Amino acid sequence: MKGTVLHGAHDVRFEDREDPRIEKPTDAILRIAAACVCGSDLWPYRGIQKIDQPVPMGHEYCGVVEEVGRDVKNVKPGQFVIGSFFASDNTCPHCRLGYQSSCQHREFFGSAQAPFLRVPLADGTLVSTPGMPAENTVPSLLATSDVLGTGWFAADAAEVKPGKTVVVVGDGAVGLLAILAARQMGAERIIAMSRHETRQKLALGFGATEIVAERGDDGVARIRELTKGVGADSVLECVGTQESMMQAIQSTRPGGHVSYVGVPHGMSLNGEQLFFSHVHLHGGPAPVRRYLPNLIELVWTEQINPGKVFDLVLPLDRVAEGYRAMDERTAIKALLRP
Amino acid sequence: MKGTVLHGAHDVRFEDREDPRIEKPTDAILRIAAACVCGSDLWPYRGIQKIDQPVPMGHEYCGVVEEVGRDVKNVKPGQFVIGSFFASDNTCPHCRLGYQSSCQHREFFGSAQAPFLRVPLADGTLVSTPGMPAENTVPSLLATSDVLGTGWFAADAAEVKPGKTVVVVGDGAVGLLAILAARQMGAERIIAMSRHETRQKLALGFGATEIVAERGDDGVARIRELTKGVGADSVLECVGTQESMMQAIQSTRPGGHVSYVGVPHGMSLNGEQLFFSHVHLHGGPAPVRRYLPNLIELVWTEQINPGKVFDLVLPLDRVAEGYRAMDERTAIKALLRP
Repeated sequence: MKGTVLHGAHDVRFEDREDPRIEKPTDAILRIAAACVCGSDLWPYRGIQKIDQPVPMGHEYCGVVEEVGRDVKNVKPGQFVIGSFFASDNTCPHCRLGYQSSCQHREFFGSAQAPFLRVPLADGTLVSTPGMPAENTVPSLLATSDVLGTGWFAADAAEVKPGKTVVVVGDGAVGLLAILAARQMGAERIIAMSRHETRQKLALGFGATEIVAERGDDGVARIRELTKGVGADSVLECVGTQESMMQAIQSTRPGGHVSYVGVPHGMSLNGEQLFFSHVHLHGGPAPVRRYLPNLIELVWTEQINPGKVFDLVLPLDRVAEGYRAMDERTAIKALLRP
Repeated sequence: MKGTVLHGAHDVRFEDREDPRIEKPTDAILRIAAACVCGSDLWPYRGIQKIDQPVPMGHEYCGVVEEVGRDVKNVKPGQFVIGSFFASDNTCPHCRLGYQSSCQHREFFGSAQAPFLRVPLADGTLVSTPGMPAENTVPSLLATSDVLGTGWFAADAAEVKPGKTVVVVGDGAVGLLAILAARQMGAERIIAMSRHETRQKLALGFGATEIVAERGDDGVARIRELTKGVGADSVLECVGTQESMMQAIQSTRPGGHVSYVGVPHGMSLNGEQLFFSHVHLHGGPAPVRRYLPNLIELVWTEQINPGKVFDLVLPLDRVAEGYRAMDERTAIKALLRP
């Protein structure tokens, strides 16, 4: 088969790769229905995160089970399934407490921008849908695999609850879906920090109640103003830079909650500053598996439509265009169809 | 009157100072029944935290109200009262949410190692006891003013609950009373990290179930071993150094809680490391005022005896010996009697 391989900065190729096959009895092979390009794929694409050798790409996926190893019991060929970027056994102590992305046997696997995919620990990792989805439901199901699950974790980790004032820092796909999550969790005010008109519109569509275009210190000042000098209850940091993290912490009231869900690149926190900010801090790789059954249910019953974040759809062999569009921010998120 | 003044590193003097007087209508003047030396007083005493000029010292106190300003309504002359190191109005949005140490009108005041003390915002800051305490109850009441309240916040901020496995990093007075707090909150296992025999004994007396003498990486390895490779649910960091903080984070299970209650000195957190640790982090200046009514009740009804941390009692004019003993770790905590 052909699949997506990153060779270096700005060099994405769709080229021959070996067909995936069952390697362990706990594996499954999927025929991909849809995959996509992740904001985190842009770190190596931009050369900020170095790679030593050509790397297969893609960690968001949904599709039909083609084949399973002899130990797989929970999914079977023909089922439509969704999984997360970390394979997890879903039985270890960390999984049982809802932190499947820190599973004691976790495996990161990233070669989903291809027609077929090997999924390790299939029983723990994959969740099946109630049936074969309609074509127009596939984008929303794909979104649950990472970008919605990550936004959902951002809202959950920042303890968004009914009546709360929430700020979302970052208007990428994760930030936009964190707004959707905060709306579902009953937040009273959801302030989206965004300076791009198309993203502002999507933010309002997902449930934002206010838009703040300012950034950095100006952004903090605006949040203070909007909250009568108190600060927000929950601030969801969906970028992963030093500036966005400091903006998030400084926008939060003492005793409030800051979540962060993007891998921080070169970020460091001053202990004394954090101490006197008095905030709660929680984040890390989103344990998407914890949320998948609920998110699939919400999509299946048409209560949410997270697939709206895909504003570019490409055939898989034009994957390089998807990277370019997201890098240049002409697209929010690119969906790939094999 | 005479009071305690720090003139420079290792130079504590008990010398003439102006008598405190009502400066604002919201002030109260206390006749101090007991004060003490805090672990945090040792930072400037050791010269690590620089001072520009002679500084009056002491921020833990209890005593009898001598005089109140004309706006004070909640306490009156003759009452025995306890307050915290941050004066707070107890009515602003931060106070109402339990973060009185981030009160919008907070004032830090530190001149309690003296016979008399001016307390700002007396109505919000001071809590009275049900009556005049017996002499032998005074040390425990004094402990509620900071060291117990801070240990209590450490346990609360790390979400100690029945059935949990708790680690306490630091065997100073705050760490020891954090053990007492964790015991009161129903923790199943309380692992005290201590290498000093007298402190280990006190730790066990306050409710620790296990002692770990190793530090740093060895300490982390021992906690991993004791928790079957999982890590602790709640780790209470009661030191404030880089090493103790990293030890705390690395001893915690993914999804577990780390609290930190000592002002961090030169500590910084690597964003990526924190991200993948998957812990919750919360701390800051302890909002002791939130806990005071409950802690006073527990002391008054003899359910707890936190006063045991005072292993040295000195008349106020020998305050310098108290600093020396704590600096040299020959005493855990020095109580001062005017």
